[in-house]
Amino acid sequence: MSFDRLIEGIKRTKNPTVAGLDPKLDFIPAYIKEEAYAQYGKTLEGAAEALYRFNVGLIDALCDIVPAVKPQAAYYEMYGWEGVRVLKRTIEYAKSKGMFVITDGKRNDIGTTMEAYAKAHLGVTEVEGEPLEVFGGDALTVNAYLGTDGVKPVLNVCRDSDKGLFVLVKTSNPSSGELQDRKLDDGMTIYQTMGRMCEQWGAELPGKYGYSGVGAVVGATYPAQLGELRQALPHTFFLVPGYGAQGGGAQDVA
Amino acid sequence: MSFDRLIEGIKRTKNPTVAGLDPKLDFIPAYIKEEAYAQYGKTLEGAAEALYRFNVGLIDALCDIVPAVKPQAAYYEMYGWEGVRVLKRTIEYAKSKGMFVITDGKRNDIGTTMEAYAKAHLGVTEVEGEPLEVFGGDALTVNAYLGTDGVKPVLNVCRDSDKGLFVLVKTSNPSSGELQDRKLDDGMTIYQTMGRMCEQWGAELPGKYGYSGVGAVVGATYPAQLGELRQALPHTFFLVPGYGAQGGGAQDVA
Repeated sequence: MSFDRLIEGIKRTKNPTVAGLDPKLDFIPAYIKEEAYAQYGKTLEGAAEALYRFNVGLIDALCDIVPAVKPQAAYYEMYGWEGVRVLKRTIEYAKSKGMFVITDGKRNDIGTTMEAYAKAHLGVTEVEGEPLEVFGGDALTVNAYLGTDGVKPVLNVCRDSDKGLFVLVKTSNPSSGELQDRKLDDGMTIYQTMGRMCEQWGAELPGKYGYSGVGAVVGATYPAQLGELRQALPHTFFLVPGYGAQGGGAQDVA
Repeated sequence: MSFDRLIEGIKRTKNPTVAGLDPKLDFIPAYIKEEAYAQYGKTLEGAAEALYRFNVGLIDALCDIVPAVKPQAAYYEMYGWEGVRVLKRTIEYAKSKGMFVITDGKRNDIGTTMEAYAKAHLGVTEVEGEPLEVFGGDALTVNAYLGTDGVKPVLNVCRDSDKGLFVLVKTSNPSSGELQDRKLDDGMTIYQTMGRMCEQWGAELPGKYGYSGVGAVVGATYPAQLGELRQALPHTFFLVPGYGAQGGGAQDVA
């Protein structure tokens, strides 16, 4: 099971950190950009190439001490298909260095459409009977507002391809409570309900370390809810964003 | 405002239909596929090219009688960056034929990350001060489980670029009720709450026909909820999937 591999990576590196690969052009060193522009122009392709070279440097620096990377799809998509091609190349490079790759796409849809996203990011697409790997991530973040119809197709691909997913449960942003913290008529909040659904969905993808292949995204910025969910969801592996720039600290996630 | 243009297209064609561009390789005529494979091989690129040629035929046939198309991003993404390039080319072609393009991506994230998606699909990406259009759709579907932080950045891009968004409110799939129909402690359901948020967000993007730039996705498969939401959300334009194959009929949406 996919998260078994992640857990083994965490043990090997003694580090439970996932490094975000959210490259912003403004923060990339000028010499990297100049080289890319010289080759491809000040274009979407040139910008995307600069992101790739920056990522390669990061991955080279991190691959022995950090077990996983999380490229954020939006920062590639904003450079068009040229950026999306760099997302694929980045995933490929990180995997070639032994890293576990979580594609942060927050994809969501239903039925065969969700299956298409799952094939794209975790499985294979068939062209005339030939299975072709597309993006090749090890796990994908998923938004489950649409219910089981939006998760089941991903579970199927995960089972076939040894991959995993992380469902948004309690996100790290300031307004996450507008909907997620609202109480339902049974007294549970929406995020608690979503968490419970993760445990149910996860029963289909058991792992050897006690965690299923259905993880949950739970922000470090809400330590009380994080602690509460950690107790309530014993088989659910957590991806905890919001550490650092967003304000979450070591004591919040301990 | 973007939906003003859509409404004018509906009046011109006397047709409130949006045609889905969800091409599935298995349903594309053999001669189109063979031509594409001859040029690009039985590869992701060859498959994507077949999708494009099929879309061009559809758009040519529809552009005088249907005002809008809705390409489903997943069916392009499953063919990798080659497919994503065809999404862009499809949008470009539909716009060149005067059609309004709703990119069905159900994108969602927060802050600058959501801004990146909004720039990608509706606005422009800057490379060294040069604004470059990326995908160029007229509207984007958005999942707002993350609250206002995930919608506000899209509103800003819509205001600057004369674009619109559709928020998932009550989706057409069988399991949409698992979460969306649950009652909150104030007696409102989650989908009603989401609908009300659309009205609030929409106040920032007023249009001249009484509808704001924040639309709602409400499935034709739930006619009772559709009627109820239509009453409750007077300024919110509806995108109504589920007509046809999913079981919704003309009486359900009348």
